[in-house]
Amino acid sequence: MPTENRLRRAVVTGGAGAIGSELVRALLAEGAVVTVIDNLSSGRLSNLGEASGHPGFRFLQADLLEPERIRPAFKGSTELWHLAANPDIRRGTMDPRLDFDQGTRATLHVLEAARAEKVGWVGFSSSSVVYGLPSVFPTPETYGPLLPHSQYGANKLASEALLGAFCHSYGLHAAIFRFANIVGPAMSHGIIYDFLRKLEKTPERLEVLGDGRQAKSYLATTDCVSGMLLVRERGESPVGVYNLGNAEQTSTRQIAEKVVAALGGKARIETTGGERGWVGDIPRQLLATDRVRGLGWAPKLSSDAAVDRAIAELRADLGL
Amino acid sequence: MPTENRLRRAVVTGGAGAIGSELVRALLAEGAVVTVIDNLSSGRLSNLGEASGHPGFRFLQADLLEPERIRPAFKGSTELWHLAANPDIRRGTMDPRLDFDQGTRATLHVLEAARAEKVGWVGFSSSSVVYGLPSVFPTPETYGPLLPHSQYGANKLASEALLGAFCHSYGLHAAIFRFANIVGPAMSHGIIYDFLRKLEKTPERLEVLGDGRQAKSYLATTDCVSGMLLVRERGESPVGVYNLGNAEQTSTRQIAEKVVAALGGKARIETTGGERGWVGDIPRQLLATDRVRGLGWAPKLSSDAAVDRAIAELRADLGL
Repeated sequence: MPTENRLRRAVVTGGAGAIGSELVRALLAEGAVVTVIDNLSSGRLSNLGEASGHPGFRFLQADLLEPERIRPAFKGSTELWHLAANPDIRRGTMDPRLDFDQGTRATLHVLEAARAEKVGWVGFSSSSVVYGLPSVFPTPETYGPLLPHSQYGANKLASEALLGAFCHSYGLHAAIFRFANIVGPAMSHGIIYDFLRKLEKTPERLEVLGDGRQAKSYLATTDCVSGMLLVRERGESPVGVYNLGNAEQTSTRQIAEKVVAALGGKARIETTGGERGWVGDIPRQLLATDRVRGLGWAPKLSSDAAVDRAIAELRADLGL
Repeated sequence: MPTENRLRRAVVTGGAGAIGSELVRALLAEGAVVTVIDNLSSGRLSNLGEASGHPGFRFLQADLLEPERIRPAFKGSTELWHLAANPDIRRGTMDPRLDFDQGTRATLHVLEAARAEKVGWVGFSSSSVVYGLPSVFPTPETYGPLLPHSQYGANKLASEALLGAFCHSYGLHAAIFRFANIVGPAMSHGIIYDFLRKLEKTPERLEVLGDGRQAKSYLATTDCVSGMLLVRERGESPVGVYNLGNAEQTSTRQIAEKVVAALGGKARIETTGGERGWVGDIPRQLLATDRVRGLGWAPKLSSDAAVDRAIAELRADLGL
C-alpha cells in the first residue's frame, strides 16, 4: 500500500506484549502515530519502555471484546496490527473458550472496527501451529489440509479465515504471518521463560516436558518485526500468507542445556519422556520462508543465536 | 469406528434441512436412533416426511447457541452429524455475525457437548468455498493456503479448525466433508430454487446474476449422503478431510436453460454481467474426489443429471 503521502496511523492490538512492543518501537521510529490496545492480561506497559513516553504513542487499556471502547481508536487509522491473543497454548487446551474469545471472537471485533472505520490494511499474527503436525518440512504456506492440534492453533486458523472473507468481501487488504517460535525479551511464557522460572524454583534440576528431542525453529523478535514491516510494503494483494522463521531448528534439549549453562551449569536435566511435551504440542516445526525471503527479508540471527540472545535478555528481565 | 456391537445413536444438527433430512432417512434405515436438533430457521419438519413418524426418530427444536437445551440430546449418543448452518452465503456477507454465530460459535457449542458426553465421532458439513477461488482444478483437499471469499466460507473453515483441535486434544474422531453444490428436494435456497422462484414471479424473463459462465460441480443429495456414510466407516483417523462432488461442471447458463425449459421454455434469459454473481461468489468450482473415490464411493448421478432431477424435485416441492 502506498503510504508516503499521508501520516501513518497504526493501531497495534497486543502492543504491550513481547512482539507487539518491539513492533511499536519500530513503527514509532518510522514516524507513525501508534495506538496500542491491550487488556494487559499478559502484556505489560513496562515492556514498552521509553516508547510509552514518545509523542506519537497512545495507549488504550481495553479488551477487544468491548466493541464500543475500542472503536474510537480505529478512527482515522491507516493500518491495524492485530497481535493480541492468549499467548499460552497449554492453558488454551484446558478451556476451549479462552482462545475462542481472545482469538476468533476478538479478531471478528477488530475486523468489524477496521471495516467500519475504513482502515485499509491489516497485519495479523498467525502461527506455525495452524499446520498441525505437517508431513512436509520445511512447511510451505501452500501446505494443507490444515488441522491444528490445539485450540490456540484452531483459533489462529479461524482468524485467518475471517481475514480472507473480509478482504475478499469488503475491500480490506491484509497480510497473515505464520510465526515460528518467536523469542526475545519481555516474554511472559514459552520454553525459555519456563526453563528460567523452573530453575529459579529448583536450581538443582530442570524438568523438560517430553523427550527433549522436539526440534523447532526459533526467530528473534527483531527479525520477526523486520519481516512484518517488509511484507506490509511488498506483500501480495489483497491478502497473502507469509511464514516467518529461521531455516534451522534448535532442539528442546539444546535449549535446556543453554539455559542451564547460562545459570552456572549445575542443574540436572530430566526429561519426562514422550514425543510431545504436552497435549497439543507440535514436536517438529520448520517453516519454508522462500516467500518472505523473495521479498528481500533475511533474519540477522540464526535459530541458535536467537535462543542465546533471548536467554540473556530474559535473564536480565527476570533478574536471574 | 466399529459400530456393529452397539446401538447406533446419532444426533443430527440441521436435520430438518435439505441434506440433513436425507441423512436422517438413511440413518433410520440403518436402524439408528436419530435425534434431530434444528431451530427450523431454514429447515422444515415437513422435509422429513415419513421419517418423523419412525419409532427411532426424536426431534428437539432448539438453537445450537443454547447449550443447556441441546446438551441432553448428546447423552448416550455414539455419533454427531453437524450440518446446521446459515444456508445463504449472500445473506452472510451482509452481516458477519450471522455465519459467525450459526457457524463457528454453534460448532464450538456442539463440540463441547460432544466432548462432555463422550460422543466418539463427528461428521461435519464443510464446503468447497473454503478454497476461495483456487488456482488448481480439480482442487484437492491438500490445496492451500485457504482464504475463503465469504463469511460463510470463513466460518466453515473456522469450524474445520476447531474440529482439528478437538480431535487432537480431546480424543474425538471426525470427518470433514467439503461439499460441492449439493442439489435435491427440500432446498430453501440455491441457484435452482432462486431460478424457480424468479420465474414464478416474472414468467417472461429470468435474471441470471453474473455472465452465466460460472461453472460448478453439482451433486445430488442422495450421492452426498452415501459418501458421508462411507467415510464414517472407512475414513482416516483421528480426522480426515474429504471433498464430495462430481467430476464434471454445469454452467449457470445451462441451469437457467434447464429451468426455463422445464417451465415451458418461454422465458428470456438475461445475464447481469460480470464474472461473479454476487460479492463472495466463487465462479469456478471443481473438486478432486480421488480420496473419497479411493474408499469405494461413486456418485450415481452426474452433475447435469443431479441438476435435472433437482429441478423436477423442487418444482414438485414448490407446486410449480
